[in-house]
Amino acid sequence: MTRRAGIDVGGTKFLGVVIDERGEVVVERRRPTPKGPDQVIDGLVEFARELGEWDTLGIGVPGLVTREGTLRAAPNLVSVAELEVGPRVGSALGRPVSVDNDATCAALSEWQYGAARGVDDMVMVTLGTGIGGGVVAGGRLQRGANGFAGEIGHIVVDPKGPPCPCGRQGCWERYASGSGLARLAREYAVGRRVNRVVELAGGDPDLVRGEHVQAAAREGDPHAIKVIDDFGRWVAIGLVSLANILDPAMFVLGGGLAASADIYIGPISHWFRELLYAPELRPHPELKFADLGERAGAVGAALLADHR
Amino acid sequence: MTRRAGIDVGGTKFLGVVIDERGEVVVERRRPTPKGPDQVIDGLVEFARELGEWDTLGIGVPGLVTREGTLRAAPNLVSVAELEVGPRVGSALGRPVSVDNDATCAALSEWQYGAARGVDDMVMVTLGTGIGGGVVAGGRLQRGANGFAGEIGHIVVDPKGPPCPCGRQGCWERYASGSGLARLAREYAVGRRVNRVVELAGGDPDLVRGEHVQAAAREGDPHAIKVIDDFGRWVAIGLVSLANILDPAMFVLGGGLAASADIYIGPISHWFRELLYAPELRPHPELKFADLGERAGAVGAALLADHR
Repeated sequence: MTRRAGIDVGGTKFLGVVIDERGEVVVERRRPTPKGPDQVIDGLVEFARELGEWDTLGIGVPGLVTREGTLRAAPNLVSVAELEVGPRVGSALGRPVSVDNDATCAALSEWQYGAARGVDDMVMVTLGTGIGGGVVAGGRLQRGANGFAGEIGHIVVDPKGPPCPCGRQGCWERYASGSGLARLAREYAVGRRVNRVVELAGGDPDLVRGEHVQAAAREGDPHAIKVIDDFGRWVAIGLVSLANILDPAMFVLGGGLAASADIYIGPISHWFRELLYAPELRPHPELKFADLGERAGAVGAALLADHR
Repeated sequence: MTRRAGIDVGGTKFLGVVIDERGEVVVERRRPTPKGPDQVIDGLVEFARELGEWDTLGIGVPGLVTREGTLRAAPNLVSVAELEVGPRVGSALGRPVSVDNDATCAALSEWQYGAARGVDDMVMVTLGTGIGGGVVAGGRLQRGANGFAGEIGHIVVDPKGPPCPCGRQGCWERYASGSGLARLAREYAVGRRVNRVVELAGGDPDLVRGEHVQAAAREGDPHAIKVIDDFGRWVAIGLVSLANILDPAMFVLGGGLAASADIYIGPISHWFRELLYAPELRPHPELKFADLGERAGAVGAALLADHR
């Protein structure tokens, strides 16, 4: 029986699993993410040993990962750049280790064991603080020439849009992520009345976050509902571009915002139909929310060795 | 020796080839595209016979093509909708026939025998009246779930942009195609001085076309050069989104505008570097112009049978 181990490196914690051949999680562990690059490497080696016996190990990390397993940049892991995660952890453990982007890992697990099981053409979209992604096309996980495929948060959806921490402007994740939702709500709060949303944020428009908009929308507040509709339109704009390029049978939406799926799915579907090229001439991709929740990255990391 | 026949169905003409095993064109024929759907089918059957002996036949058509070879819509072939090209031509000839989108065919031939030979991850972008495309990812031609992958002209690059004949607005091909270049030039002509461009168009700003801008830019006219720079920026915006999603090693630019490659390549490359996510952290995709010229679609059609 092959035991496959996977570790998802988050900004605050490591989540590790060992899965059996059917994808069942047989071991699950957590520990805080250490500070500093060398500490991350040492922590990963130690944590991998804590997971017990395993045959293969994969690691999912937030950022740009080369095909050789080097983490080239990771905005949410401070001071980590050009970190040779795969080679260094592999050498310490005396075995090859596969490393890939965390959203790519999530795509892999949702495709193999989650919402998109058996779907040969699918795109995973993780809507969190930013937007991550993973692409399965023609029945294969796609990594691109350098391993950087799936950086869908930086699709340009408005060349005159607000600046992005990446240095460019109008990136999709400025609109369609958790921080994008908060930004949209704050803009509404300044220009118009979103009293209930501001009230929920303690009275200060600058403190408005996505959850305040969601809460107000659930109470039926019309301004909050308008913000959610606008947010849905921005999500759809990016999905439409992905659909025109890749023609997937399914989008799987994950990340923090997937937890409130019910209030987004209507506006996203509505605007997707409005904005898609030739919507009357084709089956539309299914829009599903991720199945595997918090474990998606770790389970996907455990599957990397099978999908090089 | 396998002889593979391919027919490229254009708005005005059929171009047919037979290629040998090394991809050499051993037969080449043309004839005008007939009017009307039944006439197109009969014309294709007759034309396929005129190409002489062959073992496999593929057909490239402009429009949305299902995986079963039905042309679902073809804006440039009047009154053609839901035309079962593959099944009907195949049945008349007594042999299976492969049918795909013409830009997908061009991607296939450039990948197998042209500018992108041996490149496992590449995107073909045909800049003509509109924009077409084809995607090779992970060493395979990608068709998507329904056969509609590569409709890259309808990536939304500006949600408040001008209307597109597809019924939406702000599609990439409103900016980065031949008609997009003419539109940009006309806007400059109205708002500012592009005297030399208007002069070349016979004095009427409404008659400005892409070729007038190109001619004025070649003479060194600063206004025309500005229009070309702006055009290059719009081309780059779409390429950047494709690079973020697919991380190709190469873009192959084809279509009518590729003929004047020298005046576009500088601005496109400049803006690509400016707009790409994390440009300092990765090798940039090569930007090449198509090698196979007018024959790309027909040669690609001939290769379809090998790449189902």
